[in-house]
Amino acid sequence: MPNTETEKLEVEEAPANSCVFCAIVAGESPASVVHADEHVTAFMDLRPVTPGHLLVIPRMHAVGLEDLPEELGTRMWVTAQRLARALRRSGIRCEGVNLFLADGEAAFQEVFHVHLHVVPRFPGDGFRIDAEWRVRERHELDAAADRIRRALS
Amino acid sequence: MPNTETEKLEVEEAPANSCVFCAIVAGESPASVVHADEHVTAFMDLRPVTPGHLLVIPRMHAVGLEDLPEELGTRMWVTAQRLARALRRSGIRCEGVNLFLADGEAAFQEVFHVHLHVVPRFPGDGFRIDAEWRVRERHELDAAADRIRRALS
Ligand SMILES: [Zn+2]
Ligand SMILES: [Zn+2]
Repeated sequence: MPNTETEKLEVEEAPANSCVFCAIVAGESPASVVHADEHVTAFMDLRPVTPGHLLVIPRMHAVGLEDLPEELGTRMWVTAQRLARALRRSGIRCEGVNLFLADGEAAFQEVFHVHLHVVPRFPGDGFRIDAEWRVRERHELDAAADRIRRALS
Repeated sequence: MPNTETEKLEVEEAPANSCVFCAIVAGESPASVVHADEHVTAFMDLRPVTPGHLLVIPRMHAVGLEDLPEELGTRMWVTAQRLARALRRSGIRCEGVNLFLADGEAAFQEVFHVHLHVVPRFPGDGFRIDAEWRVRERHELDAAADRIRRALS
């Protein structure tokens, strides 16, 4: 029955081809879930920066900030803020918290279902950021502000 | 008139001793403002990771996520999401966007008035993150999730 065989293979391969976070929402992939409601789910990052590192995702598939309804974004935010408070009270080492969102491959997004990282921090935890920071002239900043203001309206 | 002299010095010194972001909100310090409403203000970071790097702050002084009302946090989020969209349409180089919030000195907070970074990104922009990432066992993740869930409720 080659047709059945083919169908079976396609069904088995489907999870690998689809979104890993949608699979978690659907209960098809394992996850250590901390919070789930009608709109958002929060679970432990499988490859944490520090122990306690969480991800907050909308249950609806959205790739990034461009296709995420603002109402859903605010629910992600509120959940992240509550998780940050919970981390500080959990007994997990947490002397600070980073919220981080990567929108687009150029911004280090790796899973293309929008997710907000909530990362407990402590001195010497090995997390580092680096950039070519330098103070800019006021006229450069004003010019950038003008362009962004025009794009906002 | 030594008393008047002293008072004058104190007044002049006040901005340096107080919160630099509150001074921006009050119009006492210069800033390249992109958006301001009753609740939040957004302006160019003086020392940007990339050109176009913005900060979103509540107009009310709050140190971090612990003393930031959720309602105000959601207004910061919505503003950041709109700014991310605007950056992509502004003509400023922006192939991705990072949102970043540092809550506490251990999380790299430097100005103790809560602020959400909105950073336009492009390949080769010099921004790097590094950590001692490693995949954790499910039992470790489940144990962390249990502690956080208990702290949430
Ligand atoms: Zn998805
Ligand atoms: Zn302040």
